[in-house]
Amino acid sequence: MKAQEEKTTNPAEKELFVKMVVDAWKTQNSRVDKLLAELSDEQLESEAAPGKNSGVYLLGHLAAVNDGLLEILGFGEKLAPQLENIFIKNPEKSDFEKPSITKLKQFWQEINAKIGEHLEKTTADEWFARHTAVSDEDFAKEPHRNKLNVLLSRTVHQSYHLGQMALLAKK
Amino acid sequence: MKAQEEKTTNPAEKELFVKMVVDAWKTQNSRVDKLLAELSDEQLESEAAPGKNSGVYLLGHLAAVNDGLLEILGFGEKLAPQLENIFIKNPEKSDFEKPSITKLKQFWQEINAKIGEHLEKTTADEWFARHTAVSDEDFAKEPHRNKLNVLLSRTVHQSYHLGQMALLAKK
Repeated sequence: MKAQEEKTTNPAEKELFVKMVVDAWKTQNSRVDKLLAELSDEQLESEAAPGKNSGVYLLGHLAAVNDGLLEILGFGEKLAPQLENIFIKNPEKSDFEKPSITKLKQFWQEINAKIGEHLEKTTADEWFARHTAVSDEDFAKEPHRNKLNVLLSRTVHQSYHLGQMALLAKK
Repeated sequence: MKAQEEKTTNPAEKELFVKMVVDAWKTQNSRVDKLLAELSDEQLESEAAPGKNSGVYLLGHLAAVNDGLLEILGFGEKLAPQLENIFIKNPEKSDFEKPSITKLKQFWQEINAKIGEHLEKTTADEWFARHTAVSDEDFAKEPHRNKLNVLLSRTVHQSYHLGQMALLAKK
C-alpha cells in the first residue's frame, strides 16, 4: 500500500477524492429513491410541515436541480428545462401547472440515470476542471470552483430536502 | 497557474480538496447557527412536523453528533458525553431528562469551537489518515475511510437535520 504511505499526493489519491464525493452523491440520491418508493401519492401531496412545501414540490425541486447539474457539469442539455421555472424560480403556490407525480418520478429517474452515466466516465482530472458557470479568469483565482465541488454542494442540498421529505413518511 | 495545468495531483490539489470539504462543513455549521439565532425557544420546542422530532431534540442530536466527531477524528475527548444517550441512542420520547435550551446552545457552541480550532491546525496529510473507528488493516483495503470522509458524511448529515429545523422558522 505504497500509495497510502507517501507524504505527497498522487493520481491514486486524486481518484480517492473523487470517489469520496461521488459515493456521497450516490448515497443521498439512493436514499431519495428509497423514500419515494415508500411514500404514497397522498403522502407526497402533503406538506412536509404545516404551511411548508409539499413532497411533490420538493421532488420537483430536487429533479430540477439535478437537471441543472447536467448543464453546469457540462454533461449535456437539460432533459426537462420546464422544471426550473416551476420548482426553482417560483414557490409552490404559484400559477404554474405542475407535472403529475408519475411524470415527475419519470423525470427524476431519467435525469439521475443520465447523471449516473456521466459519473462513471468522468475522469479525476475532469472533476477538478472548472464548471461551466465560472470563467477561466475566476477559476484561476478560485480553483475550488471545480466540477467536483458543485457535486459536493448539490449532495449537501439533496440531503437538506431529503430530511424534509422524510417527515412525510410514517413513523 | 501551473498547479491547475498538471495532469497528475500535487500537494496543492490535496489541500484544495481539504478546503472544499472543510468549507462545506463550515457553511452548514454556520447555517445552523444562523437558524438558531432566528428561532424562539417556543419554536425550538415545537415539532418539526406533527408527531416528529422537536427542534430541541434536533439541536441536541446535532450537538451530540458533533461531540462524537471530536473523538472519531482524534481531536480529543467529548465535551458533553451525556448527550449521546439522550439524543442519539434514544428517541425523543424516552425517560431521559434533557438539558435546557440555554445549556444545549452552550454545548453546541463549545463543541463547534473546539472542532473549529482543530479544523485550522489539521494538515492535509492528517485528513487523509484513518479515523479512530477503522483498523489499520481495514484502512489499507478501504483508504476512503479517512478523517476527511467522516467530516464529509457529517456535513451531509448536518444538512439533513438543518432542513428539518428550518421548517420551524416562520415563512
